[in-house]
Amino acid sequence: MEAIFVTSNHNKSREAEEILGVELRVVDLDLPEMQDLDVAQVAAVKAASAREVLGEPDLPVLVEDSGIVFGAWNGLPGALTKWFLASVRNEGILKMLQKEEDRSARAVCAVAIAFASGSVRVFAGEVRGSIAFEPRGERGFGWDPIFIPDGYTETYAELGPRKHEVSHRARALYAAREALHDGPEDASFVG
Amino acid sequence: MEAIFVTSNHNKSREAEEILGVELRVVDLDLPEMQDLDVAQVAAVKAASAREVLGEPDLPVLVEDSGIVFGAWNGLPGALTKWFLASVRNEGILKMLQKEEDRSARAVCAVAIAFASGSVRVFAGEVRGSIAFEPRGERGFGWDPIFIPDGYTETYAELGPRKHEVSHRARALYAAREALHDGPEDASFVG
Repeated sequence: MEAIFVTSNHNKSREAEEILGVELRVVDLDLPEMQDLDVAQVAAVKAASAREVLGEPDLPVLVEDSGIVFGAWNGLPGALTKWFLASVRNEGILKMLQKEEDRSARAVCAVAIAFASGSVRVFAGEVRGSIAFEPRGERGFGWDPIFIPDGYTETYAELGPRKHEVSHRARALYAAREALHDGPEDASFVG
Repeated sequence: MEAIFVTSNHNKSREAEEILGVELRVVDLDLPEMQDLDVAQVAAVKAASAREVLGEPDLPVLVEDSGIVFGAWNGLPGALTKWFLASVRNEGILKMLQKEEDRSARAVCAVAIAFASGSVRVFAGEVRGSIAFEPRGERGFGWDPIFIPDGYTETYAELGPRKHEVSHRARALYAAREALHDGPEDASFVG
């Protein structure tokens, strides 16, 4: 079984291949993403447009979108996390959060599959946690240095490979796995 | 002379009609916007897709996008301002800014015109100012209560109709005016 995974990140495609149990053709498409806080919404629209750009292939087309959501910020930054990192980095995000008592956060991921039939399903993965008071750890990327998953004292960036024990992305991929093997008709909509 | 203006806001279309000196057909299209900090980029892509959705009309299709950019935040929130307001409102934005010494801000607007020829031009308007320490004034919307244009002590929301003396949107519309009347060939690219 084969599928197409749209990403520029080979770490993500390797993790996806392992969990999904399918052979992935990795395609690096620089597609615009729609403005929305919700990673499920962004991933769904992106999967459909990726399938179109790729000429409606006979294989399922997968995309993922992820981000962090702060309890104090009512949905922000969510799917817009990358713009916060690009502009002010983790240090700036922590400065913005400095006056907040609510330090809770959720790491969220959505895996969207655009099937050859044209239907799109989205599968969500989420990990609850809290925000560190300063960036910690070298083994990660993005906001890994400021997210501490519940049940741990280390940040994702300090956990390194152990991050996968609790990864929001792994959870979304496990949720997608069955639908990918069964096809769209039997897919249960998650998220 | 006629043009199509895509907006759901009749205050904006009235202001645009007055400044542009053309008759505007107002169309309310709920188009997805691309993720980007830059209002010019978002407006350009939106104008092109609006023209397509409208069946490539013989009239120019105008859209506008606007936002506020904080000196302390390196481009944020920019074209993503609406998501900040939707999530945390002006009070939350001010809380995020509380630890910043740099209180400078720019009100930015981009007017994009998709001409009947298919070419797209973008015209920018900008007003420099600073961020109030609390929301002030009732006569405005969005982030009007927290933006104080340079040369004034009042926020946009306190200035009320006098806001138009300095409006970032008016500046972008004046920049677009000539190109709209001359057509795409003579249009000078601004922004």
